[in-house]
Amino acid sequence: MYRIDCLQFANWSESIFREMRKGRVDAVHVTIAYHETFRETVAQISRWKRWFDQFDDLILHGLTAADIDRARETDRTAIFFGFQNPSPIEADIDLVGILHTLGARFMQLSYNNQSLLATGCYEAEDPGLTRMGREVIKEMNRVGLVIDMSHSADRSTIEAAEYSDRPIAITHANPSAWHPALRNKSDEVIRAVVDNGGMMGFSLYPHHLKDKSDCTLESFCQMVADSVETYGIDHFGIGSDLCQDQPDSVVEWMRVGRWTKGIDLGEGSAAMPGFPPQPTWFAGNGDFGTIEAGLRTIGFDDNEVESLMGNNWYRFFAESFEPLCSSGS
Amino acid sequence: MYRIDCLQFANWSESIFREMRKGRVDAVHVTIAYHETFRETVAQISRWKRWFDQFDDLILHGLTAADIDRARETDRTAIFFGFQNPSPIEADIDLVGILHTLGARFMQLSYNNQSLLATGCYEAEDPGLTRMGREVIKEMNRVGLVIDMSHSADRSTIEAAEYSDRPIAITHANPSAWHPALRNKSDEVIRAVVDNGGMMGFSLYPHHLKDKSDCTLESFCQMVADSVETYGIDHFGIGSDLCQDQPDSVVEWMRVGRWTKGIDLGEGSAAMPGFPPQPTWFAGNGDFGTIEAGLRTIGFDDNEVESLMGNNWYRFFAESFEPLCSSGS
Repeated sequence: MYRIDCLQFANWSESIFREMRKGRVDAVHVTIAYHETFRETVAQISRWKRWFDQFDDLILHGLTAADIDRARETDRTAIFFGFQNPSPIEADIDLVGILHTLGARFMQLSYNNQSLLATGCYEAEDPGLTRMGREVIKEMNRVGLVIDMSHSADRSTIEAAEYSDRPIAITHANPSAWHPALRNKSDEVIRAVVDNGGMMGFSLYPHHLKDKSDCTLESFCQMVADSVETYGIDHFGIGSDLCQDQPDSVVEWMRVGRWTKGIDLGEGSAAMPGFPPQPTWFAGNGDFGTIEAGLRTIGFDDNEVESLMGNNWYRFFAESFEPLCSSGS
Repeated sequence: MYRIDCLQFANWSESIFREMRKGRVDAVHVTIAYHETFRETVAQISRWKRWFDQFDDLILHGLTAADIDRARETDRTAIFFGFQNPSPIEADIDLVGILHTLGARFMQLSYNNQSLLATGCYEAEDPGLTRMGREVIKEMNRVGLVIDMSHSADRSTIEAAEYSDRPIAITHANPSAWHPALRNKSDEVIRAVVDNGGMMGFSLYPHHLKDKSDCTLESFCQMVADSVETYGIDHFGIGSDLCQDQPDSVVEWMRVGRWTKGIDLGEGSAAMPGFPPQPTWFAGNGDFGTIEAGLRTIGFDDNEVESLMGNNWYRFFAESFEPLCSSGS
C-alpha cells in the first residue's frame, strides 16, 4: 500500500523530511505558491532543487506516479509541486506548459478570491469559469497539470469538473455536511467532482474539522466512513493541509497576499489570528499511522484503508500527470 | 478652449506627434498597456521618456492639468499615460501607487475579460466588483489614478461608479442606444457614471459607430447632441480610440494578449480581422477641427463646443490626478 498526502505546506527542513520517513509517507503534494508570481515560483522550485540535492537520502522530485515507487524502493518521500492560486501563470497561458516542464503537477484555479480563471470561495458571487479559465483548463488537460478546486467557489468548481476532459481534484477539504466551514464542500460539489472521476483529499486543518482543534480521531474517521458510504471509496484520500512548524506570519501571507493593504482574517478571528493548533492525534508527518489505525477502528478493511491512505491518490497521479498525445510531442 | 483626446493608441512616431500639433491637440491620454506585466509597462514608460527627450519640441509628459497649460503655452501636446487592463499591477495593490508615481493617470479595471478586479464586457456573466477590486478602487482613489471602465461589463461599471469616492471615467465608448455594439454603453451605465460626477469620451473607432466606417460626421454629431440633451453637457468629451498607423498585428495583441492559444476576433470578424478603416472625416490627429466644425453645424454654441472638445476633460483631469490628503504625504 501507498501512503500519500495530497496537500502540505510545512516550514520545510531536514527535521520534517526525517519525520516524513518516520511516518512512512511515500509522496506529498507540497504547495510552492500561494500568491507568488512566475519568477517567484521559479525561485521556490530552485529552492526545492537544492533540497533534493542536499537531502537526496530523504526526498526526491516526483514527476510521475512511478517516482512514488522509486521513492518507496529507496526509502524516500516523493515531493510533487502544486500551486494554490494560478498566480504563477500570471496572465500567460503559455506558462502552464512551462511550469509543468519545471515539475508542477497541481494548480488551483482560484484561492479564496476571484482569479483570472475562476471564483474563490470568499467572494460574494460566483459567475463560474471565465473566458480565460476555459482556455487554461484545456491547456492544463493537455499538458497534465491537475485542476485543484480546494479554495474555489461552488459553481466554478462544478463547471470545472464538467468542462475538464480529465478528472479534477479537491486536494484538501471536508464535506460541509460534517462541518459547515466556508472551505468545506457541499454535496453537489463533491458529486460533480467524483462523478467526473475526480478525487477529494480529507483535510486535517482545524478550521475544516468539526470542533476544530478539539476534533476527535473518531469523529474524523466517522466522517470518512460517512463520505465513503455516500460517494463510494474510490475517490477519497488524505490531503492534510498540514502547515507544520510554520510561523503565524505565513498564514497572514496566505490570506492577504498583495491584494489588500488591510488585514483579512480568513478562517481565523481577531481572537485567533494565527494558525490553530493541530488536534493532538495529528500533530505532524509522524502521525499518519494514527489515522490509519483510526480508519481500521471505525471498520474499514485492509483494502479500504489502503485505498484511503494512498492507493486512490496513486491511481489518480498515474492517470493525471502525463501530457495528452499531440502531434508536436 | 482646450482640445483634449482622452484615448489614443497610435503607432507613435515623430510624424504623429507633428500631426497632433497640426490638429492643435493640447493633451492626449495614451494607452501604454493592454496586457503588459508591470515590468513590460515600465519598459513602455521608459520608451516614452526617451520620446519626451527626443521630441521635446512636440510633446511633454502630462502629470497634472497644469501640464496641459504648459503644453499649450509652448505649442506642445501633453501625453497622459493609461492602461486598458489592470495587468500592470499584476496581483499587487502596492503597484497602484508605484505606477502613479511613474506617471500613470488612468487604469481600466478590466479589458473584455474577467480581471482580478472586475468583469469585462465579453464575459457571459458579470458578478460585479471583486474583493480585490474594492481594495484597489480605494487605493486608486487615494493616489489619484482614474478608474476607467470603457471595456468593463455593465454591473461592474455601475458598482465602480457607486463604490468609488472620486468620479470615474468611460474614456472611449458611445451610447448603445445609437449603435448597439457590445462595447457601447447602456443608459443605466451612462447614468451611473455621470450621476457620480464622471466623464464619458465619445469614441471614433468604427466598431463603436453607427454604420461603422461609413458613419457620417452628421450622424456622429447628432449622437453627441442627443447624449447632451439626455445627460447634460458637463460629462462628455472626446476619447477617439484612434489607432493611427497601427499594423493589424496590434489589434490581435489587443484581443488575444496571452489568455488563449487560439484567436479571438473581438469586434472584428473572419471577413474583417484587422483594424477597420477610419471614417474619411476622422483619419487622424489632424482632423479634430473637422469634429469641432461638425459640432457647430449640429447647433452647439461656442461654450458647448469648448466643453465637448476639451474643457470638460480639463476640469476632470484637474480634480482627479492629485493624491487625497494623507498623513504620510
